[in-house]
Amino acid sequence: MRIRVLSIIGVGLLGGSIGLSAKKRIKHVKIIGYSHRPSTLQRALQIGAIDQISSKPADAVRDADLVILCTPVGVFGQILRDISTGLNKSAIVTDVGSTKASVVRQGEALIGPRFVGSHPMAGSEKRGVEFARADLFDKALCILTPTRQTDQDALVSVRSFWETLGMRLTQLTAAKHDAMLAEVSHLPHVVAAALVGVQSGGSAKLGGRGFLDTTRIAAGDGALWRDILLDNRINVLNSLEKMRAELSQVERMLKDDDAAALCKWLDQRRRKRIAAEK
Amino acid sequence: MRIRVLSIIGVGLLGGSIGLSAKKRIKHVKIIGYSHRPSTLQRALQIGAIDQISSKPADAVRDADLVILCTPVGVFGQILRDISTGLNKSAIVTDVGSTKASVVRQGEALIGPRFVGSHPMAGSEKRGVEFARADLFDKALCILTPTRQTDQDALVSVRSFWETLGMRLTQLTAAKHDAMLAEVSHLPHVVAAALVGVQSGGSAKLGGRGFLDTTRIAAGDGALWRDILLDNRINVLNSLEKMRAELSQVERMLKDDDAAALCKWLDQRRRKRIAAEK
Repeated sequence: MRIRVLSIIGVGLLGGSIGLSAKKRIKHVKIIGYSHRPSTLQRALQIGAIDQISSKPADAVRDADLVILCTPVGVFGQILRDISTGLNKSAIVTDVGSTKASVVRQGEALIGPRFVGSHPMAGSEKRGVEFARADLFDKALCILTPTRQTDQDALVSVRSFWETLGMRLTQLTAAKHDAMLAEVSHLPHVVAAALVGVQSGGSAKLGGRGFLDTTRIAAGDGALWRDILLDNRINVLNSLEKMRAELSQVERMLKDDDAAALCKWLDQRRRKRIAAEK
Repeated sequence: MRIRVLSIIGVGLLGGSIGLSAKKRIKHVKIIGYSHRPSTLQRALQIGAIDQISSKPADAVRDADLVILCTPVGVFGQILRDISTGLNKSAIVTDVGSTKASVVRQGEALIGPRFVGSHPMAGSEKRGVEFARADLFDKALCILTPTRQTDQDALVSVRSFWETLGMRLTQLTAAKHDAMLAEVSHLPHVVAAALVGVQSGGSAKLGGRGFLDTTRIAAGDGALWRDILLDNRINVLNSLEKMRAELSQVERMLKDDDAAALCKWLDQRRRKRIAAEK
């Protein structure tokens, strides 16, 4: 599929970066941006992330070949309802949401088989179109979560769109995606915030690079993460249960002064961490 | 005090970096290095971190004006006993240990008032003299933990030594140091390792920059951290208790689907994290 008109619903860090990147890599594409904040739309236009602004989702998608939802997960339901009547028949819809099961369920119910769930794993604790970068997606991983209903042409088109932006692609079921992301992303966010919460009496000020790196993601937007955590709460609760078990092991070893077991525990995790980066 | 002879006991990442930095910034200093590994000593000599090697701690300190213990915390007791008889009367002894109460207690018992506890907060998850850098300490914080017994001249000399290496200085009691470091350093290490432990079925491979940053310190040496955690276990157990309380709060909010409370919890920690970096 050739993308002539691309609609970006929500032009923050991710939406803005998609615009900048698509502009560079897709010839003659026309990009229409929607945001509920007029100031955001103006900034997106200024930096060249979009070509045209729209103050209503339904208007923004009217001529679109591809629509990408880039708002927080919590408003996807409303947005999908708003755009469902305005799309032309061949339009494909995808999203950048950090959770996939509920999003795909709503997407298929309201849009049909031409909705394809995506999770481009890029971004940062920063928020807002002023941090948008054309190279945000370069070499990063994008997870697609098609179902048996998914239109195969739509899937191929969405896959090729992210590849054009420089991403590596993989596929998972939405359920598997959400379970894995709870462990590798949502739990780490909760844990980083909890670590910050533990700090008392200025101890956070003593933190070196280790503390700052470990808690960096806790500076991410609260409302955004509230949506993600609640949407994926069954999996997040499972991960918290596992985390609790890990910490209990350490408590036991410390109480028992069990140097050998503690060293083994630390070394196993050290090796696993080093392997994760390879 | 003019430092003519500096003895570095343990020439790994920290000891080697102290050597490289002191060489650059202290005129005509002679640096003697000790390690129980001959290959480490040879490498330290090759990269210019030390001028002379010594295979016995007592020999390494014989002519020293300043001795710095840079071995893992777990062997400080043995090293202090080994060097205590070989020091000349005016020698000052300090260390780079990540825990201070037990180190200072042993240092004062075996060396006397010219032992001054230091904790230069620099380093990384890397280990070994091959990662040593002359600028490792630049602008980083060094915590001194003198007691009422500490010789004031020795304190001034140790303070001025770290300043020469480019560090910012502060002072805490050893007890306060250990309580604060448990929160800002030792707990984060346990938590990072636990997060890695939670990952199952390849989820760690999906980790983006957030996961990698949050768990980076878990790649640190197991034996080194075993020593630190056990030495400071009362404080680490207290911090783990606080961590458990934080995670329980999140579990409660997720189970109750309490979006407002969760958003508030996340936002408070977000602001605290942002403030920590200022």
